[in-house]
Amino acid sequence: MSNFEWNKGFTIDFSLLTGLSTKAESSKRYLSKVASMFYDTEAAAKMIEADDELVYEFYELGAPENAGDLAIGSSILYPGKVGDEYFMTKGHFHTILETAETYYCLQGRGGMILENPEGDYSFHELTPGVAIYVPQRYAHRSINTGSETLVTFFAFRGDAGHDYGTIETKGYRKLVVDRGGVPTLIDNPKWEGTV
Amino acid sequence: MSNFEWNKGFTIDFSLLTGLSTKAESSKRYLSKVASMFYDTEAAAKMIEADDELVYEFYELGAPENAGDLAIGSSILYPGKVGDEYFMTKGHFHTILETAETYYCLQGRGGMILENPEGDYSFHELTPGVAIYVPQRYAHRSINTGSETLVTFFAFRGDAGHDYGTIETKGYRKLVVDRGGVPTLIDNPKWEGTV
Repeated sequence: MSNFEWNKGFTIDFSLLTGLSTKAESSKRYLSKVASMFYDTEAAAKMIEADDELVYEFYELGAPENAGDLAIGSSILYPGKVGDEYFMTKGHFHTILETAETYYCLQGRGGMILENPEGDYSFHELTPGVAIYVPQRYAHRSINTGSETLVTFFAFRGDAGHDYGTIETKGYRKLVVDRGGVPTLIDNPKWEGTV
Repeated sequence: MSNFEWNKGFTIDFSLLTGLSTKAESSKRYLSKVASMFYDTEAAAKMIEADDELVYEFYELGAPENAGDLAIGSSILYPGKVGDEYFMTKGHFHTILETAETYYCLQGRGGMILENPEGDYSFHELTPGVAIYVPQRYAHRSINTGSETLVTFFAFRGDAGHDYGTIETKGYRKLVVDRGGVPTLIDNPKWEGTV
């Protein structure tokens, strides 16, 4: 179901400041629903008890699931930490692994971690005006290392699909944590894979 | 040829204000090279004699031409008019007609005209924070109806290709002209097609 004219063309607003749209409803991820992705589960539990914060939200507009269309939307990742680990998105592979994605940063400061099934990984910094190219075959996770909301506009092939399962089971090889105020890449102590 | 790591991931800057990048060279379209797309050819000739203005520029980063990749970049359309017709891009179909595109507006005021081979057309206004979905099978042309530069970030499938020829031969069915300060859609007196 979609309210948009994918076969005739349409416009939709995504605020350059907040990423929010007045024409669509966002999907929201509260800490309680994504707590398991953070390595400090105790810190997460305490935070949820105090206030189940909104970690991120994004738009799924219902793009036709075929190779000629594009899914578009914005991703809005709030600032915060669980222990020393920055707020981040769950991240995902595409179900059709051989499909790229792009994100263009509108606000905030952070980055994206890329990782392919063979273990190649890299971290790319995002600041306003920076576009990232997520290549085919790479899982990608946004990380907000700043004090403001990290806002991006994204596009990927309509049939790409999201494979969250692989990441949920295995996690990422690397985490991004705060070490004395400096975003630092460390090995994921919970990473369950074969190197 | 491309300087970018399409198979490993990369970032590139496109200024949110000007659309310009410090990491790539833009393709530039001066009035003398695109004069024939304006209906008032006399006005165009006079303008070129006085000053061969830069009408627009955009980035072609050399994305791999296959269905799993995305071409990304920015489009920068300067303000101006040829007679009463606003500065615009040449516009194009995709060579693989069944591929969509998206543009996200960063600066300026203008719009995009969409037109498919069967004659369906529509005009969509663009202002900062508005994304347009260009569906499969639609030619698309940007038009700057404002007094500032119209800047957009775009993405489309790597293998989509650009078919400028069809538009160059036939033009668009509709033009956007200034009628007493109001952008107005009129029939293209030069349109050579069968309705």
